[in-house]
Amino acid sequence: MKFHQGAAWQRGRLIPVGEASIGVTDWGLTHSDITYDVVMVIDDAFFRLEDHLDRFEASMAALRLKPAEDREAIRGALHTIVAASGLTWSYVSMVCSRGAPEIPGIRDPRLCGNHFFAWCVPYVNVIPKDVATRGAHLWVAKSVRRIGEDAVNPRVKNYHWGDFTAGLFEAYDQGADTVLLTAADGTVAEGPGFNVFAVKEGKLVTPARNCLEGITRMTVLEAAAEAGIMVEIRDVPLDDFLEAHEIFTATSGGGPVPVVRVDDRIYGNGVEGPVTKQLREAYWAMTTRPTLRTPVQRKTDLR
Amino acid sequence: MKFHQGAAWQRGRLIPVGEASIGVTDWGLTHSDITYDVVMVIDDAFFRLEDHLDRFEASMAALRLKPAEDREAIRGALHTIVAASGLTWSYVSMVCSRGAPEIPGIRDPRLCGNHFFAWCVPYVNVIPKDVATRGAHLWVAKSVRRIGEDAVNPRVKNYHWGDFTAGLFEAYDQGADTVLLTAADGTVAEGPGFNVFAVKEGKLVTPARNCLEGITRMTVLEAAAEAGIMVEIRDVPLDDFLEAHEIFTATSGGGPVPVVRVDDRIYGNGVEGPVTKQLREAYWAMTTRPTLRTPVQRKTDLR
Repeated sequence: MKFHQGAAWQRGRLIPVGEASIGVTDWGLTHSDITYDVVMVIDDAFFRLEDHLDRFEASMAALRLKPAEDREAIRGALHTIVAASGLTWSYVSMVCSRGAPEIPGIRDPRLCGNHFFAWCVPYVNVIPKDVATRGAHLWVAKSVRRIGEDAVNPRVKNYHWGDFTAGLFEAYDQGADTVLLTAADGTVAEGPGFNVFAVKEGKLVTPARNCLEGITRMTVLEAAAEAGIMVEIRDVPLDDFLEAHEIFTATSGGGPVPVVRVDDRIYGNGVEGPVTKQLREAYWAMTTRPTLRTPVQRKTDLR
Repeated sequence: MKFHQGAAWQRGRLIPVGEASIGVTDWGLTHSDITYDVVMVIDDAFFRLEDHLDRFEASMAALRLKPAEDREAIRGALHTIVAASGLTWSYVSMVCSRGAPEIPGIRDPRLCGNHFFAWCVPYVNVIPKDVATRGAHLWVAKSVRRIGEDAVNPRVKNYHWGDFTAGLFEAYDQGADTVLLTAADGTVAEGPGFNVFAVKEGKLVTPARNCLEGITRMTVLEAAAEAGIMVEIRDVPLDDFLEAHEIFTATSGGGPVPVVRVDDRIYGNGVEGPVTKQLREAYWAMTTRPTLRTPVQRKTDLR
């Protein structure tokens, strides 16, 4: 099983994920000058693949990244790696990096050869499954804020995670499972790899700014609309957020996850609230909808 | 000439720089969870090597990174790669990355194996030499601010360069050579890889916050002290900065570089000012001081 840990597509070749690498002078590493997207394979089909490809293309355009591969080639690479891996549940990452200038020492990003690669591994739960089952304990970071929108656009999916990592260590020090960051203005932003939602008097509230426009967030908002739940997408001051009846996170890697504790505050007597449960079940029901699924092509030619 | 483009030390091996790489799932890439430092070899000796090692160790401690190699081993690796490269002027990078958890999908940075590597290439002028000679044209970014200190500590040398890269594209679009970023509060921060200085009524002024505590900055401040030039390290509002008599940049990759234009404003009739010239010459004189130099050991055993 050459690809049992996952497969990658790089420089036109299909390789085991452990062999996929990037040069130490590539600006994708040294300047974090890189963008990516992650799509999940759920029960042998990509979920919302075209939405993820749309966002990936928008991210590349925003950073002025142009790889050699067009959308069709990128889509083909994703099918190829998942098919090769044999995985029916998979975390699939598509990445475009700036590259490095041919002449070492030149510091002009316009002279770099941008390059696309992709890799897949077994399905990832951003919040571990046992934590998701009992309900997550969230810590609101006190020592660090989310990187400002005026510095790095959070809607362009990026690897600038220094704020998240510092926050994660703070959360672990406090015995929490993961962290929630606020923006400089004190409104709620997002956590490492997930959006957050609050349920307040039957309404669903989620931050409008300082966060990724998550595709799972979008799916949850659609599920809420279908269920007739009112939605508010707006600035959410931290105090306002904490005064919720229910809180949950949302990410492609695990879907909606109930939060039963934030700092010292317990929500729903420590168990998942009814609206969270309804939306979590609605989310997983949506992942079975044929219109949102792209079955993995198991006989794709390697491009 | 196996190492004519540079050499690297990675996983206990000496290899050509072009073969040094990092896995695509390493958090050094996917979370920019990594720190580094850069020391220059000038005329066959490291300049201020112990200062750079001090800062690198402080950066690693701040991020809770602990590689297998201690300071002596890191120092040894740097000598080894430069000796192998044959370079007498070199840009030498030491790096420590978070690594990846052994169990894929686990998202806990405490479970990653941190790893050190180093690489060297021919000496890099962060601002190209021809631009440095005629005097640089700086553009103050309008579309982007420096990442806030409350989000990512700029004194811990990091690869979070999204703000710089966006600013660089804006500067190029305006026909400038490089960019200067301001902080969210409107004070001057730094540029991509360099600190900035203003000369105002004979005094040297440089930002206290929102920037790296550059070792070239320190050298320039020491040179100023030796020359009896008054120094102010403080918040510098942009307007205050722009009303300078002289402006210059400072980085290990090229030393002090005069700025003769910022946006549409010309400084010193477009030629290097007298204080900049004095400090630039003092800087290069300091690079020849034996107390600040560590000659490259040309017969080091590879550790």
